[in-house]
Amino acid sequence: MKKHGNEEHVFEIGVVIPRRVVQEKDESCDCAYVLVKEFEKVGFVVERVIGIADEFIKLAAPLETLGRAAAELQIKKRTLIGMDLQFEVEEVEAFVKQPDGSVFSWYERFQCYCHLIYGIVNNSKSVKTLKFDGKEIHWEIGENLLLKLESVEIVKQVFPLHDEQKRKKLLRSWALQWWDFTSQPIDEIYSYYGAKIAIYFAFLGMFTRWMLFPAAFGLTLQLIDFGSLKLVVLPIFFIMVILWAIMFSQFWKRKNSALLARWPISSIVAADQGYKISGRKSSSWQPPMELMKVFETDRAKEKEIFQRHEWLGRLMRFRNDAIIIFSIICLQLPFELAYAHLYEVLDSDIIKFGLTAVYLFAIQYITKIGGKVSVKLIMNENNENTEKRADSLVYKVFGLYFMQTYIGIFYHALLHRNFSTLRQVLIQRLLLSEVLENLVENSLPYLKYSYKKYRVRHKKNEKGEAREKFQFTSRVEKEYLKLSYSASIGEELEDGLFDDFLELALQFGMILMFACAFPPAFAFAAVNNLMEIRTDALKLLVILRRPVPRAAATVGAWLNIFQFLILMSICTNCALLAWLYDEEGKWKIEPGLAAILIMEHVLLLTKFGLSRFIPEEPAWVRANRAKHTTQAQDMCSKKLLRTISGGDKTFREGKKLE
Amino acid sequence: MKKHGNEEHVFEIGVVIPRRVVQEKDESCDCAYVLVKEFEKVGFVVERVIGIADEFIKLAAPLETLGRAAAELQIKKRTLIGMDLQFEVEEVEAFVKQPDGSVFSWYERFQCYCHLIYGIVNNSKSVKTLKFDGKEIHWEIGENLLLKLESVEIVKQVFPLHDEQKRKKLLRSWALQWWDFTSQPIDEIYSYYGAKIAIYFAFLGMFTRWMLFPAAFGLTLQLIDFGSLKLVVLPIFFIMVILWAIMFSQFWKRKNSALLARWPISSIVAADQGYKISGRKSSSWQPPMELMKVFETDRAKEKEIFQRHEWLGRLMRFRNDAIIIFSIICLQLPFELAYAHLYEVLDSDIIKFGLTAVYLFAIQYITKIGGKVSVKLIMNENNENTEKRADSLVYKVFGLYFMQTYIGIFYHALLHRNFSTLRQVLIQRLLLSEVLENLVENSLPYLKYSYKKYRVRHKKNEKGEAREKFQFTSRVEKEYLKLSYSASIGEELEDGLFDDFLELALQFGMILMFACAFPPAFAFAAVNNLMEIRTDALKLLVILRRPVPRAAATVGAWLNIFQFLILMSICTNCALLAWLYDEEGKWKIEPGLAAILIMEHVLLLTKFGLSRFIPEEPAWVRANRAKHTTQAQDMCSKKLLRTISGGDKTFREGKKLE
Repeated sequence: MKKHGNEEHVFEIGVVIPRRVVQEKDESCDCAYVLVKEFEKVGFVVERVIGIADEFIKLAAPLETLGRAAAELQIKKRTLIGMDLQFEVEEVEAFVKQPDGSVFSWYERFQCYCHLIYGIVNNSKSVKTLKFDGKEIHWEIGENLLLKLESVEIVKQVFPLHDEQKRKKLLRSWALQWWDFTSQPIDEIYSYYGAKIAIYFAFLGMFTRWMLFPAAFGLTLQLIDFGSLKLVVLPIFFIMVILWAIMFSQFWKRKNSALLARWPISSIVAADQGYKISGRKSSSWQPPMELMKVFETDRAKEKEIFQRHEWLGRLMRFRNDAIIIFSIICLQLPFELAYAHLYEVLDSDIIKFGLTAVYLFAIQYITKIGGKVSVKLIMNENNENTEKRADSLVYKVFGLYFMQTYIGIFYHALLHRNFSTLRQVLIQRLLLSEVLENLVENSLPYLKYSYKKYRVRHKKNEKGEAREKFQFTSRVEKEYLKLSYSASIGEELEDGLFDDFLELALQFGMILMFACAFPPAFAFAAVNNLMEIRTDALKLLVILRRPVPRAAATVGAWLNIFQFLILMSICTNCALLAWLYDEEGKWKIEPGLAAILIMEHVLLLTKFGLSRFIPEEPAWVRANRAKHTTQAQDMCSKKLLRTISGGDKTFREGKKLE
Repeated sequence: MKKHGNEEHVFEIGVVIPRRVVQEKDESCDCAYVLVKEFEKVGFVVERVIGIADEFIKLAAPLETLGRAAAELQIKKRTLIGMDLQFEVEEVEAFVKQPDGSVFSWYERFQCYCHLIYGIVNNSKSVKTLKFDGKEIHWEIGENLLLKLESVEIVKQVFPLHDEQKRKKLLRSWALQWWDFTSQPIDEIYSYYGAKIAIYFAFLGMFTRWMLFPAAFGLTLQLIDFGSLKLVVLPIFFIMVILWAIMFSQFWKRKNSALLARWPISSIVAADQGYKISGRKSSSWQPPMELMKVFETDRAKEKEIFQRHEWLGRLMRFRNDAIIIFSIICLQLPFELAYAHLYEVLDSDIIKFGLTAVYLFAIQYITKIGGKVSVKLIMNENNENTEKRADSLVYKVFGLYFMQTYIGIFYHALLHRNFSTLRQVLIQRLLLSEVLENLVENSLPYLKYSYKKYRVRHKKNEKGEAREKFQFTSRVEKEYLKLSYSASIGEELEDGLFDDFLELALQFGMILMFACAFPPAFAFAAVNNLMEIRTDALKLLVILRRPVPRAAATVGAWLNIFQFLILMSICTNCALLAWLYDEEGKWKIEPGLAAILIMEHVLLLTKFGLSRFIPEEPAWVRANRAKHTTQAQDMCSKKLLRTISGGDKTFREGKKLE
């Protein structure tokens, strides 16, 4: 085992191999030894840890190693003049630093690690024979070592490791910081988890902070009896809440662009470069190379071909969406309605309970099938990159959940046409879904982790080894046993963020679409979200493995879903109000309906007017960027021009000036 | 008089001074002579033309002169690597060429001309005394010559000249090209008139071409009697037309970005640099310099100050809009309603005629006042540049015209609730407004021009000079007598494009908002637009002076107005349909109304869904740009980085490599 004296290195990747029973005599043939040697040859700092059931190789990469990998990968990074250029090791100074002072972001580092780990091939002139626990593996010339070892299951997994120092710091400053609930160290989260997760928490924080206003309003409405004024107060509440939601979605865009201004994320990195933990380049739709070549040969045809390619892709996307929508309406809708109706007409509580059990079982199955079908369909679309594809998946799967969550409530609202039943249903759902889900979401991974630990111990015990040896002394083995941050559907495209965002969106729709029916729902949601911030933080820091970083730096599809929910809620609330006034019989239907229709149209107009009124990028962000980049540009404007206008001229000019 | 042998120079700017009665003996004191000498010193090619009433100095600038001016102005131009950099004469090769092969666009050239013309100051150490027609003018040290001469009215005007060769070519290939009505040489129009006017004609052409489809549909509906199917066909027509309009606005955005990809317009030139024909820097809201300085001193405060500045400006804008909307509703609406009502209740045709005359007189007055108030209000807003300010004006003034044009029709629709009266009103308006306006628009400038010519001749005749001398032999004098391309309101911010776009938008609203009432209106509009293309072209080429080029390269505020009209027309047409079915009594109101409401909501959703579905930039434009810029970037990536990372390092590296 080799250990570097320099303890500064942070081990960020772990490679898991099974613990060997037989120790090889000839070390140079030993598979683990060769692996470590190769890693060291590449430039990694390597540490081997022998755990109870497995052996772990921890990898850290010095800056030079990462830089070389980045140059090989042709990673484009933001430079001081605001343009993205290919990384070069020698010209490190030209690139914008990360907020924590490092050159590479966690996402870029991870890409480099993958490139290096999965880039090891047999460069020698002969086949190498590796031995592992008696097995013999022939490492052919030019063959990829890691893929080979993965295929014979010697390398069980490659996964990102927690950085203990930073994790503890975050635990203190974030998850266990109890006074100011909504403040979070977003920049540190970005450095540690990457942009996508940081953006989620920024969104959650802002959402919670904004939620306090309608929560207070809704509670007031519930607690104070307005008497005859009730009919006026409710529309006011509705209008305020819709305006609040519109403002929120608009101000979130501003916040997002302010965050992106702080983090030097190049637009090209954001359109990911197709590296996944699996090491193979994912078959993402690169700007089609065949098409690019046509560009050269025939200027006249290029446009036509590109147009055809674009519209074909769009048509495919449209077809897929149509399939999903069609099957949701034709298959899921009758099912949900049947359940809601049966639940309504049945008398016996026992049969109701049984029905719900069957329903819950069936719905899980349906969701899973729906997710799988969606993933299949998406694979045929030519979305530009993984994140776009994930967005496409989100839309499709959200349709499923939307139907599942709300159709029952709509049914109740339509059937009973009175608010008290609707209110009961809403309270039921809110309490059930939020409290239960939060519990399950956080306890389940921990239980699974405990069970895994138990199994490992148990196995060893069976083999009759002494009890005291099975304390999990090595942190890396504990981490290996933890669950990864994965989505309940389609692990290929989405990670655990999908579930977290889904929860938020369903909650948002529930409280907003039926705002008039049950104003204090906002208070429920606010309390739930306050808890959610901490529990999600704890989940990421303590319960789960460090997630694989993702490229995207916006909320993506979810913001569009939020906006769709706002639109829906304008319509549903107007319908609710119309029903309410119709039933109470105090207004005649004619002027009342007209007033509600006018209100609806004004609100719809406001929704689209405001999104123009509030620009998506704050002025100070623009000014800041303009200042930084133009300063840098102006400083070297002449030289840049000289560089562009003629290659070797640069040197002539250089000499002349000297 | 001085004439260059080199006849290649195209004279693009004319300076008008009055024709002198007394010829100075000492030429060096003669004002005109000094002016010409100064122009030549600056680098212009000068030609003097003596007209009948005035004397003209025609200016042409060789590339070197323009380049020097551009470098002084620090004009930012698109370079081959896709970044905008300050122009440098020596590095011309680094910049993207215009489609016609020249270095500068007409807008940039015009800016340079203005900079040079209005940049002449007395650099000598003594006050110069200039004589003109007996008057003595003291040109102080450091004083601006042109401003001085303008203030004493010796320089009557500075205006852009037509380029006879290109004008004739355009006349042949554009205005007088009769077979394919909708095809226009957009690139040549761009080179000759600048981006804004080219975009207008591209928009008009595309609009007309697209208009043919609903025109055919509408005519079919009119000519064929569907009998009992009528009630089904009309909603179908409505849905088709709305979809058509949505698609049009979306595809226009694509077309616009495709056009912009062809023309190398840098984003910074588009945010104009504040030069107007008046020569003074317009007081446009530059990114506030005081604020920029705060950036340096206090990083913590910067954000706050910028936020305050931004929101204050937005609040101002909001206040102004509110004032305009309020006064339109409180002042204009009652007036228009009063007129519509009086017209309805009066019996005598003579009184009706008188009323209309009074109304027309009053409405012109009101519009003018409204325009002036709007311009005043806008001056207080801190819009970023002239084009943004012009957009703000467009919104405000369009509100005025919207009320004026449609309120009468709405009144009729509401009052009579039957389609035949509404149809009559629509036909009346369409015929009147379109045919008459087209006539007036084109004949008025010509009549004014003829009258001006006549007056000049007449004056000379009075002085008793011989008749045959007064033929207008010099083209430049004729051009001087022509009208400029100016807006009917607020000349400071908008040119004649305002009127042209206004006409289009009002027509669009008229035919779309009442589509269900009068389907063949689309055919009217299509014929009118076909004529409009040619007459507008003729107007610009023959009847008017060459317009001052403008920076913007999009339709700007007008596209938003079109989209607003689409939204409005979804609502109005649904209302019309509801009324129609209500009156016909074939459907019960309940299901009919519900169906119409659902249709409305689905269409509204489609409107916003489609704008996401159809991306604003075609894939081939993006691919094309990516290819060009990345090629250039990759070619000099290393050198660029070297330039950015360290100044003098460039030269060291350069030497080493040699």
